[in-house]
Amino acid sequence: MRAARYYDRGDIRIEEVDEPAVTPGTVGIDVAWCGICGTDLHEYTEGPIFVPPHGHPHPISGESAPVTLGHEMSGVVYAVGGGVSDLEVGQHVVVEPYIIRDEVETGPASTDYHLSDDMNFIGLGGGGGGLGEKIVVKRRWVHPVSNDVPLDQAALIEPLSVGYHAAQRSGAKAGDVALVVGAGPIGLLTSAVLTALGVEVIVSEMSPLRRQKAAETGVAKHVLDPASQDVVAEVRALTGGKGADVGFECTSVQAAVDTLVDALRPTGVLTVVSIWGRPAQFDMQKIVLKELDVRGTIAYVNSHPATIELVESGKIDLAPFITGRIGLDGLVTEGFDTLIHRNETAVKILVSPSGRGL
Amino acid sequence: MRAARYYDRGDIRIEEVDEPAVTPGTVGIDVAWCGICGTDLHEYTEGPIFVPPHGHPHPISGESAPVTLGHEMSGVVYAVGGGVSDLEVGQHVVVEPYIIRDEVETGPASTDYHLSDDMNFIGLGGGGGGLGEKIVVKRRWVHPVSNDVPLDQAALIEPLSVGYHAAQRSGAKAGDVALVVGAGPIGLLTSAVLTALGVEVIVSEMSPLRRQKAAETGVAKHVLDPASQDVVAEVRALTGGKGADVGFECTSVQAAVDTLVDALRPTGVLTVVSIWGRPAQFDMQKIVLKELDVRGTIAYVNSHPATIELVESGKIDLAPFITGRIGLDGLVTEGFDTLIHRNETAVKILVSPSGRGL
Repeated sequence: MRAARYYDRGDIRIEEVDEPAVTPGTVGIDVAWCGICGTDLHEYTEGPIFVPPHGHPHPISGESAPVTLGHEMSGVVYAVGGGVSDLEVGQHVVVEPYIIRDEVETGPASTDYHLSDDMNFIGLGGGGGGLGEKIVVKRRWVHPVSNDVPLDQAALIEPLSVGYHAAQRSGAKAGDVALVVGAGPIGLLTSAVLTALGVEVIVSEMSPLRRQKAAETGVAKHVLDPASQDVVAEVRALTGGKGADVGFECTSVQAAVDTLVDALRPTGVLTVVSIWGRPAQFDMQKIVLKELDVRGTIAYVNSHPATIELVESGKIDLAPFITGRIGLDGLVTEGFDTLIHRNETAVKILVSPSGRGL
Repeated sequence: MRAARYYDRGDIRIEEVDEPAVTPGTVGIDVAWCGICGTDLHEYTEGPIFVPPHGHPHPISGESAPVTLGHEMSGVVYAVGGGVSDLEVGQHVVVEPYIIRDEVETGPASTDYHLSDDMNFIGLGGGGGGLGEKIVVKRRWVHPVSNDVPLDQAALIEPLSVGYHAAQRSGAKAGDVALVVGAGPIGLLTSAVLTALGVEVIVSEMSPLRRQKAAETGVAKHVLDPASQDVVAEVRALTGGKGADVGFECTSVQAAVDTLVDALRPTGVLTVVSIWGRPAQFDMQKIVLKELDVRGTIAYVNSHPATIELVESGKIDLAPFITGRIGLDGLVTEGFDTLIHRNETAVKILVSPSGRGL
């Protein structure tokens, strides 16, 4: 079968690899679609970061570069291993792509398995990837999705789960006002979750095209342009002088932090969703005198079932966020290059590893 | 009566002032003891900060400098105004020294009256102060204390309430491990509350004398010297490799923030108790990948009853934290100067405005 394999920074190859074996406790999935994530781009331009470099095997997966990429995948079950009795061939599924030690408890009561030692992701740290035609995954990381949800949209459930977990981390509840700074893919999908949960979303975003996407998809009730508007004053005006209840930092830019600290109401919660390559400064006087909470959030933890329910129930329509469909051969030239150099119009580019979806 | 009046930076005068009038809804208190707070020192050396400068009346109190100082007070009720039926003359009381608009709800269900617009403190923003022989306070800010609690110790209930609120903000619960960085008065009193709540406290403090105080009072189970020990490694060793559940920043020093971010376990809570005059840097990658919470905390909100209970029940002994007793005439020379220049040995210096306690 064919797969996109990450060798090193700037070196991704489309190769013929062996099909993975379906073993007891695992599920064989025929990949339908796999999204390209900002993390994949970082591996390509600045990595290896999550990918274990060649010769340095990951302590859980035992693998190192080259590894198959891709962790935002949907597909159809083609085989189940021994002991798997609650999934059947032909069922639509998505993958929660964790590489976590077998002994870490991941039942519904767990709130921190995603923070366990040496955690990595399928499609980065080994374990195959969604940018291959087939993948075999342990049962606990496979989530069934109604066959009524188109498989292309299902591929966005993984990044949507990031937004769901961020919303949970913030404590946002129906009727709250959220300020989301940055309307890239994660900012948009976080906004989609918040709106579906009954939160009133204000998006602040420099790019007119991204503002337009936030407005036309309905995930933001208000869109603000920080280049021409005083975002703090606008948020105050929209909240009767009070300020936003929750804020989401989705840019990894210092100005976003400063805006959120000022735009939040006292006891507001600033959730940091983006990955930062450098420290941020916080005005501690404001953190203290407003009793703000600054909360980090990463990936998801038992978030997939609720996220899938938001999509199955029609509360979130993922179709508008799919802005491209390509095959494996166009991964770098059509996929990565578009997202790296012309990413204002692109939200999510999906790859069909087999080419059958195109 | 005599009172210490703040005129301007470096200008505090002991003067004869009129006795305040007991009006309907208020309580007249004969001040027994009033502690000197770090905030008072800041007003003296760098202020006016909370004190409204002369000619710029505070929007709620209507007062400006000169104002009577002192907000950590205990005393005995000498008169009650009309409508006050649940306090009687001779009763021991402490003051929750807020200046907050009358219309702000402060009942037991309120969680944020202390963050209401233009909040200030009695003894800084007007309303008289504990560094005067008598004070008249609205009923809602007066908390009765058992006559079994010595009035000198009762004067420490106000800063202890700061520690109580900080502990509440952190979400610390019995069995947790807390790292408290800085063992000045607030670090020590926060540690005292945490220990009383069943939290295992590790204190990190540069000063040998302060470390000694933390150890000999029993408010810390472990004391660490950041100059000679690797605090992060020690905390890991004391927690089976896990890290502290909660952390308290009580120094306003960058190194304390860095230590706490590293010493906390994933999903740990870093509570910022100290007042910062400049921004702090946070390693956002760690905030995100460990899903830390950074929470500001200021003063107290409905914290006095529970704090008083900790003292009345004997769970906290405040006597060891009283390191000096002076009269009004020695306020600057014996009080402020000691705390500013020789503050390693001093924890809390109490003032007897009438001199009767000396």
